[in-house]
Amino acid sequence: MTRAELAALLGEVRAGVLTPEFAQERLLQYLRQAPFEDLGFARVDHHRALRQGRPEVVFGPGKTPDQIAAIAERLVAAGQSLLVTRTDRQAYEAVAARLTTAKFHELARSITLALGELPPGRGTITVAAAGTADLPVAEEAAVSAELMGNVVDRLYDVGVAGLHRLLAEHGRLTAARVIIAVAGMEGALPSVIGGLVGVPVIAVPTSVGYGASFGGVTALMAMLNSCASGVSVVNIDNGFGAGSIASLINHLPSA
Amino acid sequence: MTRAELAALLGEVRAGVLTPEFAQERLLQYLRQAPFEDLGFARVDHHRALRQGRPEVVFGPGKTPDQIAAIAERLVAAGQSLLVTRTDRQAYEAVAARLTTAKFHELARSITLALGELPPGRGTITVAAAGTADLPVAEEAAVSAELMGNVVDRLYDVGVAGLHRLLAEHGRLTAARVIIAVAGMEGALPSVIGGLVGVPVIAVPTSVGYGASFGGVTALMAMLNSCASGVSVVNIDNGFGAGSIASLINHLPSA
Amino acid sequence: MTRAELAALLGEVRAGVLTPEFAQERLLQYLRQAPFEDLGFARVDHHRALRQGRPEVVFGPGKTPDQIAAIAERLVAAGQSLLVTRTDRQAYEAVAARLTTAKFHELARSITLALGELPPGRGTITVAAAGTADLPVAEEAAVSAELMGNVVDRLYDVGVAGLHRLLAEHGRLTAARVIIAVAGMEGALPSVIGGLVGVPVIAVPTSVGYGASFGGVTALMAMLNSCASGVSVVNIDNGFGAGSIASLINHLPSA
Amino acid sequence: MTRAELAALLGEVRAGVLTPEFAQERLLQYLRQAPFEDLGFARVDHHRALRQGRPEVVFGPGKTPDQIAAIAERLVAAGQSLLVTRTDRQAYEAVAARLTTAKFHELARSITLALGELPPGRGTITVAAAGTADLPVAEEAAVSAELMGNVVDRLYDVGVAGLHRLLAEHGRLTAARVIIAVAGMEGALPSVIGGLVGVPVIAVPTSVGYGASFGGVTALMAMLNSCASGVSVVNIDNGFGAGSIASLINHLPSA
Amino acid sequence: MTRAELAALLGEVRAGVLTPEFAQERLLQYLRQAPFEDLGFARVDHHRALRQGRPEVVFGPGKTPDQIAAIAERLVAAGQSLLVTRTDRQAYEAVAARLTTAKFHELARSITLALGELPPGRGTITVAAAGTADLPVAEEAAVSAELMGNVVDRLYDVGVAGLHRLLAEHGRLTAARVIIAVAGMEGALPSVIGGLVGVPVIAVPTSVGYGASFGGVTALMAMLNSCASGVSVVNIDNGFGAGSIASLINHLPSA
Amino acid sequence: MTRAELAALLGEVRAGVLTPEFAQERLLQYLRQAPFEDLGFARVDHHRALRQGRPEVVFGPGKTPDQIAAIAERLVAAGQSLLVTRTDRQAYEAVAARLTTAKFHELARSITLALGELPPGRGTITVAAAGTADLPVAEEAAVSAELMGNVVDRLYDVGVAGLHRLLAEHGRLTAARVIIAVAGMEGALPSVIGGLVGVPVIAVPTSVGYGASFGGVTALMAMLNSCASGVSVVNIDNGFGAGSIASLINHLPSA
Amino acid sequence: MTRAELAALLGEVRAGVLTPEFAQERLLQYLRQAPFEDLGFARVDHHRALRQGRPEVVFGPGKTPDQIAAIAERLVAAGQSLLVTRTDRQAYEAVAARLTTAKFHELARSITLALGELPPGRGTITVAAAGTADLPVAEEAAVSAELMGNVVDRLYDVGVAGLHRLLAEHGRLTAARVIIAVAGMEGALPSVIGGLVGVPVIAVPTSVGYGASFGGVTALMAMLNSCASGVSVVNIDNGFGAGSIASLINHLPSA
Amino acid sequence: MTRAELAALLGEVRAGVLTPEFAQERLLQYLRQAPFEDLGFARVDHHRALRQGRPEVVFGPGKTPDQIAAIAERLVAAGQSLLVTRTDRQAYEAVAARLTTAKFHELARSITLALGELPPGRGTITVAAAGTADLPVAEEAAVSAELMGNVVDRLYDVGVAGLHRLLAEHGRLTAARVIIAVAGMEGALPSVIGGLVGVPVIAVPTSVGYGASFGGVTALMAMLNSCASGVSVVNIDNGFGAGSIASLINHLPSA
Repeated sequence: MTRAELAALLGEVRAGVLTPEFAQERLLQYLRQAPFEDLGFARVDHHRALRQGRPEVVFGPGKTPDQIAAIAERLVAAGQSLLVTRTDRQAYEAVAARLTTAKFHELARSITLALGELPPGRGTITVAAAGTADLPVAEEAAVSAELMGNVVDRLYDVGVAGLHRLLAEHGRLTAARVIIAVAGMEGALPSVIGGLVGVPVIAVPTSVGYGASFGGVTALMAMLNSCASGVSVVNIDNGFGAGSIASLINHLPSA
Repeated sequence: MTRAELAALLGEVRAGVLTPEFAQERLLQYLRQAPFEDLGFARVDHHRALRQGRPEVVFGPGKTPDQIAAIAERLVAAGQSLLVTRTDRQAYEAVAARLTTAKFHELARSITLALGELPPGRGTITVAAAGTADLPVAEEAAVSAELMGNVVDRLYDVGVAGLHRLLAEHGRLTAARVIIAVAGMEGALPSVIGGLVGVPVIAVPTSVGYGASFGGVTALMAMLNSCASGVSVVNIDNGFGAGSIASLINHLPSA
Repeated sequence: MTRAELAALLGEVRAGVLTPEFAQERLLQYLRQAPFEDLGFARVDHHRALRQGRPEVVFGPGKTPDQIAAIAERLVAAGQSLLVTRTDRQAYEAVAARLTTAKFHELARSITLALGELPPGRGTITVAAAGTADLPVAEEAAVSAELMGNVVDRLYDVGVAGLHRLLAEHGRLTAARVIIAVAGMEGALPSVIGGLVGVPVIAVPTSVGYGASFGGVTALMAMLNSCASGVSVVNIDNGFGAGSIASLINHLPSA
Repeated sequence: MTRAELAALLGEVRAGVLTPEFAQERLLQYLRQAPFEDLGFARVDHHRALRQGRPEVVFGPGKTPDQIAAIAERLVAAGQSLLVTRTDRQAYEAVAARLTTAKFHELARSITLALGELPPGRGTITVAAAGTADLPVAEEAAVSAELMGNVVDRLYDVGVAGLHRLLAEHGRLTAARVIIAVAGMEGALPSVIGGLVGVPVIAVPTSVGYGASFGGVTALMAMLNSCASGVSVVNIDNGFGAGSIASLINHLPSA
Repeated sequence: MTRAELAALLGEVRAGVLTPEFAQERLLQYLRQAPFEDLGFARVDHHRALRQGRPEVVFGPGKTPDQIAAIAERLVAAGQSLLVTRTDRQAYEAVAARLTTAKFHELARSITLALGELPPGRGTITVAAAGTADLPVAEEAAVSAELMGNVVDRLYDVGVAGLHRLLAEHGRLTAARVIIAVAGMEGALPSVIGGLVGVPVIAVPTSVGYGASFGGVTALMAMLNSCASGVSVVNIDNGFGAGSIASLINHLPSA
Repeated sequence: MTRAELAALLGEVRAGVLTPEFAQERLLQYLRQAPFEDLGFARVDHHRALRQGRPEVVFGPGKTPDQIAAIAERLVAAGQSLLVTRTDRQAYEAVAARLTTAKFHELARSITLALGELPPGRGTITVAAAGTADLPVAEEAAVSAELMGNVVDRLYDVGVAGLHRLLAEHGRLTAARVIIAVAGMEGALPSVIGGLVGVPVIAVPTSVGYGASFGGVTALMAMLNSCASGVSVVNIDNGFGAGSIASLINHLPSA
Repeated sequence: MTRAELAALLGEVRAGVLTPEFAQERLLQYLRQAPFEDLGFARVDHHRALRQGRPEVVFGPGKTPDQIAAIAERLVAAGQSLLVTRTDRQAYEAVAARLTTAKFHELARSITLALGELPPGRGTITVAAAGTADLPVAEEAAVSAELMGNVVDRLYDVGVAGLHRLLAEHGRLTAARVIIAVAGMEGALPSVIGGLVGVPVIAVPTSVGYGASFGGVTALMAMLNSCASGVSVVNIDNGFGAGSIASLINHLPSA
Repeated sequence: MTRAELAALLGEVRAGVLTPEFAQERLLQYLRQAPFEDLGFARVDHHRALRQGRPEVVFGPGKTPDQIAAIAERLVAAGQSLLVTRTDRQAYEAVAARLTTAKFHELARSITLALGELPPGRGTITVAAAGTADLPVAEEAAVSAELMGNVVDRLYDVGVAGLHRLLAEHGRLTAARVIIAVAGMEGALPSVIGGLVGVPVIAVPTSVGYGASFGGVTALMAMLNSCASGVSVVNIDNGFGAGSIASLINHLPSA
């Protein structure tokens, strides 16, 4: 209910068009009214797209292909773009049976279906990844950002132990508006990039590594302790989160 | 050395103005040349301000008031704005004895001295804090952001256990371009804010709490696991980092 | 042996009906007498139902379907209601072969069989859950509470990142006598609910999440650090424990 | 704004007494209106006492005696009872200079001032503590519960390594309506008590112990893993929280 | 080489029976001589049985049935008793094919084969276990102790949440010379037993439990923090270690 | 109340000497009767010395010198030997003012006062310590064991990095009946000793070390993982516990 | 581009052989030129062999046999030796189908193919392992070191609980130029070896053990806390890293 | 006793010069003979200098100035060089009162006194440090290495967030024979250096940082997970250990 709608409602009470009782009910109802739809096992939040300008993401693990397909269908029916993460080809096939234009991104382990015209981002989001094992997470970030209307530049296999690879791409780094830096093991990539550029760096630790990498905790902690001051961090393997934040930044209005 | 300078140099070699030996020396020297100045106990990086558009921050702990004053003087002499964090009145007095225009921010535990005209940020940075004990960190963020040329709106004592306080300020939240959300204990504030707005939220866990708060680790972990997707996180108590990232975002060119 | 039984025994000794030797044996035997029955691999505690007004719970993991069925049969033969948690359909079928009235709760992963009249709880126990992935734990709590004679109101998918969903059900929250709040990830739901109501909140962290959720430890720690003061916490995924405590509270006598 | 006030407001619009514009402003203002008062460094929440039937607690650490006294004075002026925890005699003296009827509880490290008639709890809250070193936390729980209108029975030094001490007081345990069990080290007391009684047990781990007690984490984890099913847990050393939850339970209406 | 053998050797040098060179070689050889036998993938230590009076234990995990059988055969051929732990029926069958008198202990997941006359222990070793899920570890302890010549009394399902079960067996506890107390979850059993008896208690945490039991770490930490002073602790699930230590104590000479 | 006392009581009821009511009271009273004395801030357990053959230990931290002296006086008045651990000279002086024969052990940070004839231990307890920094803990163990009537052999500065020092004392190790092995840092001493001897080894990790020693956790974990099978472990820095367990073992009857 | 090449380039500009524009391009290109080759999913770094004198290692986990074979073929085509770690026979067969001279090392779980003449190491690298379960890691170290041109002496099953086995090989230890010490459980081997020799010891913790070994963390922490001062540590199970470092040391020029 | 001495001894027995009894005693005595001297509170190991070519280090914390001075005097009297770490000026003054040539290194917090001619190292040891706060640890490493006869090149304030500072010194890095890389916070320096050079890198994490740096644990874990394969790690803040290992490597014979 917008401010205009409220004024109109009260005006109609004044005019005798509506009884006060009716208006009271209407107001109470609005406050109670849930801008979502009950699907039995999940309340699909149709307002988030409006409120936050991004698709409702469906997190794959723990859902059956059928559940994923049902949610997907409902979201698309409600006019929202679709993004399913941490999923697999089997779930994709269940989705594609209902939504033939859905796409599967093997490396990103994601399903997407873009609806409507997306407002384009202002600049490029660069996704930098340290090693080949970090690619699924990097691709999840890239695919998510693309679905939200961003141009993405992928800069892969630029880990700090071979610094020349990264330095050779200095130009691509400085051309970015936001950088997503994805790394496992010692998680040093965001620090090095953060020292080279003057734009926000979203660091994504990955669970890549073994022994004392503790499933990504070492990289996470290293990134939180980055000596470069432009770096903020998302959860381990959370490519979608990074893509989403980068897109938010990239879509901020010209103000 | 810009591309133009390189072209000029080589042209002068061609013209015989410079010998190849001289040019070789000049090139090697450039590669070796460190854009910083040695202060004995610290290399002051005069290029960072240029490279990254923000002041060199001086981290107070472990430095004597005299060391802080010496570094401060050198930075200001080099034309940079000054920001000392995690410091106290004693250090401030040492700095003020040399730099009379320096300011002390008691609650933020910071010393600042702004030099030159700063390009203004595009919108407002809102700093939200959950409780009174979070204020030193929130103020460090606010003071840092202000020093970098941003307008800051402070929204304090809006913890989630008294939700009406936060909801009452919904308008101020939606008016922000970037939000810094500061909280200790269970660290839920960024999740709630992230669900209400469509702009980037920088979450700052604080070491406030006791028992199983583990000096801020609980809040940190909660924020990393935020179910709201626009939230990225900085280190525990890292108000400066959050202010710096928010400023980076707020200063991105209109592109 | 009640105080009255003791008085009677001693009176009979005085009256010469019983010899002192017999009474001595009787007393020693009582002290030694184990109010349980040996099943080989488990001592079934038939007195707990009397002592504590709740069924003996059988924890499924690590027990074969046959072992579960044997324990179940013995408990029911002793007149106790049955609750098996963390179990599956295969175990249910073994139980149902012996106890045809047993029910299987798919989502709650539980088997129940109610015996006798249960004293009704005084009010409603509301089970609130943050996301769909928290439902197995929430259902375990709900089913447990129902088996113990409580009316349960289920309020699902009300996580804090979509605050309007929770606020829309404010009335159902305030109508509860006890609330069980189930959440994974950052575990903020109990804090928000605890700030809205004036009744006890039992918080149940779930192992839902990834990365730095650490199998529910993040949610657990966040809940222990709740800034809302009416919140107490049970172990990760311990739906049964929460249901049991809520029932205890809901069955306290009018005193 | 109650439902009745809303009806009245709308009726006055209908009657032409109020313009729709005025009513609109009034409604918007209500939504924005914060039921608290700004104290500069803290928003004092005067509604919590009404909403939740318990005093606003002031957590001492990190606040100066003067800040504590200022908050205390404001709360009492607003008609609320006062409870300051984790404080000391110095803060008490600052408070007492303004509020002469305030009391200091040395062992509980708390300041209290009771205002008005409190509705009495329905039964007794028993506070059991394992060792003498657990007493500050146990007393914080007891003092908090008493301030909220409860009768408290203190049962101290009943740790599990000397089981006869606890068993000797079996009668006092079974007479309780709620039990708060406070223990450090291995934290076994709540498990043993939980096995003996049929009422809710609130477990409070304390930071008592050394070596691998990890400042109370061992006791906390042990309590969360209690094999007795009536036990819920609060944060380490959180006596106030336990007292508050026990009081909530003890004040539930007869329904 | 005993002192007598050394005297004899030197005497023979003196007498000219042996050359100094020969004696030198003999001495050097003795120092180098390894009292074990190389099996390719393991050096079988035939001296440990002599040195320490207990069988060489073969730890099952990570070894194929064939490797286990090969080591077993070699140990028995060298006259040692055999104990294989954490093993399964498949490995047993491989062993039994070579050593027909080997026994399999299903619950203890162990293979044994006793050789020779064992000196009997001086008293009884009581193995107490909290729950049925602790039995595999308790049985490993019991079987290990029996193989080393001890009489074992099994006291199972006596967890602290049903204290009467344990107290009912007070006599069996006080009759023990050493007690092994096995528990998972909150690990309180050793504390309670340690408070009731005056003999050494070997505490064995088990990995039983879920959530914040952390695979036995909670029980381990609780046991290390036992407020009863006669309790020492072995590694999680280390039934063999506990049985071995108890046997050492039970076989100490009368001195 | 012994079996004989119970028989006598019942016989007197039979004979009419005692009324059943009196006997009932007597029996109920016995069950309630606490074999301890209330000191206000601590229940002094006078029965422990009888039950467990060792002095009541007073743990110093958190107690004032006066509290320590009061408890000490009461214990000695009750005929018990005294042991105060983790204490200092100031507390000693308070104790000595009341109990002139109390002794202070500077290095062990302990106060002792032996009362009565102690039954001698059967053999020698050897206390081995890795480095000089481990001596306070080692001495606490040694002093505790001596107070309980044991002969103690101190074998200090025998850490594994200088193996020859330990091997040079092989004879003293093999002469022991029980060995207490005290070490910080990597905590390897108990493993090496456990491989050399055939008697029980009580391992005591100390908080000696820095960096990743984590206040003794590394040593603790290493000791729990000892590859030598005769090793059990007590809490970090728990010299008293080790001395107490060693004494229990050394005083086991000849059976 | 060497200093000589730079001089030549500039000389040619001077001589008019090259235009300044050409030289400029050449210089810019050099800076941008990446000494690696893009393989789609991995940038193969052909310069590392030159820069660091060791083969590019291919870490097996998470790569399909086909991906491993493709990378292997490319590396060998570029003239580099091949080392694949943490792999299995299936991957080997895929590699061998393309590179028939590749070898599989079962125990080391590695594939190797040596190309060209390797400069021999200066001395022997001794790989010592505590137990049979440590052999896969020890063999990975040994195979890696051999592939890099070192002579390796394997000294296995010399854990500290059977100290005589290690002391019997004292000569082999002192003959080494570098020692790799591999151990799980309490990780004491490097400390003992470090105390016996005067050469660098590279400690490799393994994930061998159970309970509180925490997948090698205990051994890792113990090794970091080694009281022997010549010990440095690599990650858990990182045999390749240890072999690589040992080889670096063993190949240092005579200087 | 060397092989030659043994031959001589036996030859003298043969010749009748020595009796077999005398030789037997002599041999037994040798085996028992401890190559150290008892100082009451510490066994000073005079052989370590011989065995391992480095001074006995005295670790300052927990020792009084007098104890340090006493140990220092004894070591120097035995002809050993002296190194006291983690100490302060007060301890230095106590040492200097007895040993006038001792030197104090303020930044390194160390006392040294070099005795005799040290064999020079083969090359340069470069000590690189990330930030000024890392200097105490870096200096401890440098001073230690110098005392052991090495030439040290200090390369300070070259953290990865200002990569150009490090790259500007590429030449000094490649000129080193061993590199010690010291860093706190995210600990990325060793990875970057390890990727640039072909010599061994000893990584030293420091406790510099705050929040989730956990006293150096983050840096430690990051270094253990270094993606550069020439990096081994020592304990947090262990400058001495790093200097000692680097010296060992730098003094390996030309072989």
